[in-house]
Amino acid sequence: MTSPLAVHLGPQTPDPVVRAVEGAGGRLVAVEEARAVVWVGDAASFTEAFGERGAGLPPTVEWVQLPSAGIESWFSAGIVDEDRVWTSAVGAYGSAVAEHAVALLLAGVRGLGRAARARSWDNGAAAEGQVSLRGATVAVLGAGGIGALTIPVLNALGARVIAVTRSGREVPGAAECLPAAETTTIFERADHVIVAAPATAETAALVGAAELAALGPQGWVVNIARGSLVDTEALVEALRDGRIGGAALDVTDPEPLPDGHPLWADPRVIITPHSANPPSLQTPALAERIGENVRRFAAGEELLGRVDPGAGY
Amino acid sequence: MTSPLAVHLGPQTPDPVVRAVEGAGGRLVAVEEARAVVWVGDAASFTEAFGERGAGLPPTVEWVQLPSAGIESWFSAGIVDEDRVWTSAVGAYGSAVAEHAVALLLAGVRGLGRAARARSWDNGAAAEGQVSLRGATVAVLGAGGIGALTIPVLNALGARVIAVTRSGREVPGAAECLPAAETTTIFERADHVIVAAPATAETAALVGAAELAALGPQGWVVNIARGSLVDTEALVEALRDGRIGGAALDVTDPEPLPDGHPLWADPRVIITPHSANPPSLQTPALAERIGENVRRFAAGEELLGRVDPGAGY
Repeated sequence: MTSPLAVHLGPQTPDPVVRAVEGAGGRLVAVEEARAVVWVGDAASFTEAFGERGAGLPPTVEWVQLPSAGIESWFSAGIVDEDRVWTSAVGAYGSAVAEHAVALLLAGVRGLGRAARARSWDNGAAAEGQVSLRGATVAVLGAGGIGALTIPVLNALGARVIAVTRSGREVPGAAECLPAAETTTIFERADHVIVAAPATAETAALVGAAELAALGPQGWVVNIARGSLVDTEALVEALRDGRIGGAALDVTDPEPLPDGHPLWADPRVIITPHSANPPSLQTPALAERIGENVRRFAAGEELLGRVDPGAGY
Repeated sequence: MTSPLAVHLGPQTPDPVVRAVEGAGGRLVAVEEARAVVWVGDAASFTEAFGERGAGLPPTVEWVQLPSAGIESWFSAGIVDEDRVWTSAVGAYGSAVAEHAVALLLAGVRGLGRAARARSWDNGAAAEGQVSLRGATVAVLGAGGIGALTIPVLNALGARVIAVTRSGREVPGAAECLPAAETTTIFERADHVIVAAPATAETAALVGAAELAALGPQGWVVNIARGSLVDTEALVEALRDGRIGGAALDVTDPEPLPDGHPLWADPRVIITPHSANPPSLQTPALAERIGENVRRFAAGEELLGRVDPGAGY
């Protein structure tokens, strides 16, 4: 029997993380005895504990697991070195956002936004305009990390997925893979669209008047990426003219969406205030990732989210 | 090459059904030439077309597909005979209801009911109390037809399913299978529950005060079966005392839920007015079933929903 992996956990010690480390065969120890450090805190707390650039971290520590997906602040504090392995939590929080995207799309097509606002039993109004994802074609714009995680769920619901990436590369589980440049084809062929692409100069107002018109009068737009990807004015007009079924948005432009904006009042619109990845879901997601990496480290397997100190991410 | 199956479709001829019959290799013909009849209408329209007890149906018709899941009215009109094969649409409409159940549960745990009612951007309020189905345990009470259809979707979302049936028999895809009699264990072990069991004397008020208390303060109750399965008074009290996370109900007791009932005003409650299987979704579901049965009949395979004239269903 090999001895359990000695892990130092700090400065916070959330229960789910403790359970994940121990469940993966790790043993919590003081940093002086540790082969691995799992840090649940920010870069400032790291330098507070281990000095500038983390120079006081014992050389016996072979691996440091950081808690966030983006680790720019750790690089700019000079903490990430080439003497040991560093891992970020990149990708660990995607499943919560993917779940939110599917929840928004289902709520949209099944009329739950309208239902939640009702104060009276009206079967006729509730049934009106309902469509199903079963047999529907859903385009996932940006079928990388988060977008890709929606695909197995959409397939289980009986939908057919068009995965859209910059290159149009093969994406597992997608019925069709198209490059982002074929925007018109994508919106003509899709019944609904999930916007999950990164915000870049190229993707600004990716969903505009022409795309919404092509989607069709029962089509739903879900945006869990960034507000800038959807042209808000075009969306308001498309709703006004009945050119789409509705929109379910976790991000808006402008954000926060001001009080009194027409999108607040529309029963075919569901807005969540950038809450697809709330704090309550981050600790369990981080714990899941940490457990997996502790298991992998102990087994000598490749770690998830390994940082390239030269590349800066 | 075999000749296409001659099918008579009437009295309604919805486009999706026409496409399904033809897509499955059928050819639409007058009833005199037909080997199969697909009836999209009620029992009264059948006797109108073919006389009392459907006695005027040509003897060359070997198979009749009926449009509904329950076919009591066809039996009481004396139409179903032993001279040919009859099929009902039993089970064909389940996927729409199963989709609705998952939509309600996701909307509940991700706070979409509260979000749909908001008229102002409030990230803190939206994040509060959100939980994920990922890693959660969901009990499906009545894991027969409709309940069973939720299981692959729940699994794709990363949930663990306890399938509850009267006998506790094995249900594909479930992590655990328990008999309905073990109600307390089920509610203690589950994070959320989907009520999908038939309404019988045994299942009346199946979900009462004790069960709700066992579910826990973040637990959601979804009911897509019949209102009588959930004790409404106990539900209102559990919500008032914060003993559960919320409830998403397609059916209520009483039904319709009267205006002014406390459930209408509670932001942790989502009510859809018995609209899980709206007319807009029935024609596509029926078309899918008919296409499959036309294909099976032509191939000499067993038909779905075959009626037992002796048993009366």
